[in-house]
Amino acid sequence: MAPPSRHYGPVNRSKAVASDRSKEAGADFLQLDTADAPPGGLTDWLSRRLREAVGDGRLPGGSRLPASRVLAAELGVSRGVVTDAYRRLAEEGRVAGQGRGGTVVVAGPAPTVPPAATSSASAPAPSASAATSSAPALYRPDPDAEVFDLLRGTPARIDLTPGVPDLAAFPRAAWLRAERAVLDGLAAHDLGYGDVRGTPALRRAVAHWLARNRGIRADPDEVLIVAGTAQALALLGRALGRVGIDEVAVEDPGSLGARQHLAHWLAATPPVPVDAEGIRVDALRATGAPAVLLTPAHQFPTGVVLGGDRRRELLRWAAEGGLVIEDDYDAEHRYDRPPVPALRAALPERVCYAGSISKLLAPALRTGWLLVPARLRDAVLDAKRFADLGNPVLPQLVLARLMESGELDRHLRLLRRRHRRRRDAMIAAIRTHLPGATVHGAAAGLHLMLTLPEELGCTDIELATAALAAGVKTQPLSWHTRLPYPPGLVLGYAAGSPPELTEGVAVLGRLVRQAG
Amino acid sequence: MAPPSRHYGPVNRSKAVASDRSKEAGADFLQLDTADAPPGGLTDWLSRRLREAVGDGRLPGGSRLPASRVLAAELGVSRGVVTDAYRRLAEEGRVAGQGRGGTVVVAGPAPTVPPAATSSASAPAPSASAATSSAPALYRPDPDAEVFDLLRGTPARIDLTPGVPDLAAFPRAAWLRAERAVLDGLAAHDLGYGDVRGTPALRRAVAHWLARNRGIRADPDEVLIVAGTAQALALLGRALGRVGIDEVAVEDPGSLGARQHLAHWLAATPPVPVDAEGIRVDALRATGAPAVLLTPAHQFPTGVVLGGDRRRELLRWAAEGGLVIEDDYDAEHRYDRPPVPALRAALPERVCYAGSISKLLAPALRTGWLLVPARLRDAVLDAKRFADLGNPVLPQLVLARLMESGELDRHLRLLRRRHRRRRDAMIAAIRTHLPGATVHGAAAGLHLMLTLPEELGCTDIELATAALAAGVKTQPLSWHTRLPYPPGLVLGYAAGSPPELTEGVAVLGRLVRQAG
Repeated sequence: MAPPSRHYGPVNRSKAVASDRSKEAGADFLQLDTADAPPGGLTDWLSRRLREAVGDGRLPGGSRLPASRVLAAELGVSRGVVTDAYRRLAEEGRVAGQGRGGTVVVAGPAPTVPPAATSSASAPAPSASAATSSAPALYRPDPDAEVFDLLRGTPARIDLTPGVPDLAAFPRAAWLRAERAVLDGLAAHDLGYGDVRGTPALRRAVAHWLARNRGIRADPDEVLIVAGTAQALALLGRALGRVGIDEVAVEDPGSLGARQHLAHWLAATPPVPVDAEGIRVDALRATGAPAVLLTPAHQFPTGVVLGGDRRRELLRWAAEGGLVIEDDYDAEHRYDRPPVPALRAALPERVCYAGSISKLLAPALRTGWLLVPARLRDAVLDAKRFADLGNPVLPQLVLARLMESGELDRHLRLLRRRHRRRRDAMIAAIRTHLPGATVHGAAAGLHLMLTLPEELGCTDIELATAALAAGVKTQPLSWHTRLPYPPGLVLGYAAGSPPELTEGVAVLGRLVRQAG
Repeated sequence: MAPPSRHYGPVNRSKAVASDRSKEAGADFLQLDTADAPPGGLTDWLSRRLREAVGDGRLPGGSRLPASRVLAAELGVSRGVVTDAYRRLAEEGRVAGQGRGGTVVVAGPAPTVPPAATSSASAPAPSASAATSSAPALYRPDPDAEVFDLLRGTPARIDLTPGVPDLAAFPRAAWLRAERAVLDGLAAHDLGYGDVRGTPALRRAVAHWLARNRGIRADPDEVLIVAGTAQALALLGRALGRVGIDEVAVEDPGSLGARQHLAHWLAATPPVPVDAEGIRVDALRATGAPAVLLTPAHQFPTGVVLGGDRRRELLRWAAEGGLVIEDDYDAEHRYDRPPVPALRAALPERVCYAGSISKLLAPALRTGWLLVPARLRDAVLDAKRFADLGNPVLPQLVLARLMESGELDRHLRLLRRRHRRRRDAMIAAIRTHLPGATVHGAAAGLHLMLTLPEELGCTDIELATAALAAGVKTQPLSWHTRLPYPPGLVLGYAAGSPPELTEGVAVLGRLVRQAG
């Protein structure tokens, strides 16, 4: 096949350089092309084009027109053409300003996308009226994946949902200092396409962090930087499919969100009961599943630590061919108990390990790490490549600095003090206002689980619904269970002030008394 | 099933608060637990634990021990225990320092992961010797997806590979200013889990940008923020599968990388020839494919603009039921031609539109946007949710500020001036050193395509291999073709200085003369 003929090689070059005016004229702004203007009618033409763009919404209210000097240069017209056109639009009330602040559109078009179409079921519903009307639908027994968006988008006076650390403590000044240092030290090529596995600096920092804090020896080359635990599960879902695993057992109670993510990528996620020693390995064996996702250091939501015997039993199951996915989501936060080493440290060739910065700094950073057995490494790397070619570079380099400088350790110590005070406030409030409830898993983490007497008189879905109507947002425990279990609530304490936590629990106490 | 019994409720709380020392003692650092120490032997015990950690690599050379004050407080021991243990390790030559700079590990263990195992085939090979030995293997006729990592990781004196803008011009100061403003203005809850679709501020900024520069009217709710065009293709791959489309035709010549990404997610990617007017719609119809990926504004790699008749023919095909995926990868960079409006503007309900910041600012930011027809919106949003729960928030907010303040427009004007000079330098060098070559697509973009006479005497793979051996990195045109096509090279000019570009082209000229 012949190559395209519309080209110019060295031979034609002189013609191209002699820049046909009608070709060079034109700005990306509104795709204006002076070749369209009638002879002598430039101002009319430009005014009309601008009017159309304001009218059809391409220039919405509040948007700024280019400086007349700039637009005139781009179009290759005299500046007077542009200022005249701007003046006409101003006289028509379509734009305003023209001073040093620039010319701004003031009259937008009537909205043509009806509001009903834009706030589809998949969009969060942030308005107060929507919250009230959607509250009954929000808490349903078997919610789909959009429920977390809906919950987040629903306003409430007091937010006791679990999952985030104290975000007000985010080290903004340290982050900005690190960002400045990163930008100062960056080579130009660092801004190009990067290493799919993550920047070497962050992989090294994570390896050091895991060795120091989680007892895991890892070469930086084994660390894959990912966009949080959600992506770690997605990549594993893809990679496991390639080695013939399409079923991963999960803990029950166990995280609804994690289960939804696995279920999106895999054929089955059979539930395995959790008791006071953690996951029941006999029941895991009975499912016949080739792999299991679990939270051994601080089971979600029960807070149980995987007991010593159970740990050995699980490692035996893994050594015999089972694959463990260890979700180490909040192990760094602990208060009244010794640290629990990661399973990955004991059996690296049978354990995939996922951790993230979400509970240490902020979920909004979307940064985590994944370590897998050698035989899965290529498949997981491939999955990351075809997902997004690797995490953004700047936040990785900033984070690496915070981790290697000791700043993150300092932040963790600060968080522990603050979280412990908040946890204690919540437990004291529960003792006062919910004397019949039982608290689980409070020795570590960012949340606690509350079970309520079976004779409560309502489901936990109904309780959570009533609480939301009273301005208190929680998660019903039954969201995180599929097997029979008492009713309860999962309550986060890390992001609320002690008075808020106390007031929120008092509201729950009042509702439980009314139900009983 | 009964809830776990290892818990404490209000009743047991007093016991927990009375803090059993052996439970509270312990630091995450090396998971030390003083309960393990023999009575009276704390210093011995701590020294042994530290020695083990240095020996087995959990504390690698260069890592920093916690301040003695901090570790003593965490362990609940006197500070003398820690300083004594540190002193012993220092006497043994395992650590050094102890001053204000802290105590640093100096003796690491022998590496236990053999280098051969860590630099697997999937890892970039950055050493010079690896480059020399892998150079012949690097340029192969049908490369797999790892080839871009290998190419990037292979050092070369002069890099003429396409795909990046002038990264040295990245507006570091403006970025840092915007980041400071973002951190100053951020609410704590902005740092939690965010909107899967992207932050409202960036979706709004992108909608304005597209209206101003690409003629596209879009409501911010239609904009999905994604991790670059690679992720846009991945999400489309997932979403199209859900509506029964598992085949997407691609341009030929056409981007190898984009094809690899689609091929990972879909069953088939049949090639459709491109001629001087762009993609041959008759040939597209003949494939029977229900969808097509194309680059209408500046075809990659030929640089052809989709002609007016061809554009109408394509839109007719789409109106009859075909789906267009418009990869608008570098449309903002143009020099001697009028702007080309996006196809999306003409037929939004049949065109998926993908754009990104990679060619405007930097690929390392991994930020792009995807607009799809309404019927695909839920499926694409779902795919994004299960991929990673949404892009990181801070870079989105920084970018939104740069876009809305006019900073990005200024940067684009600066880039155009610089890129045009570089393009002109490359074309002049080609005229001098490669008089037999034909230049294509130089009126816009960041690269140009060179075709070479059929009587060249070697393949473009051989030419690229020889060039790399001579220190010049390029991409052979045949990587981007599956149908018969003349040999050639794809050369990026945006990231190199004019003298580098000239020298690189001179090397290519010498090699072509030697081959002929």
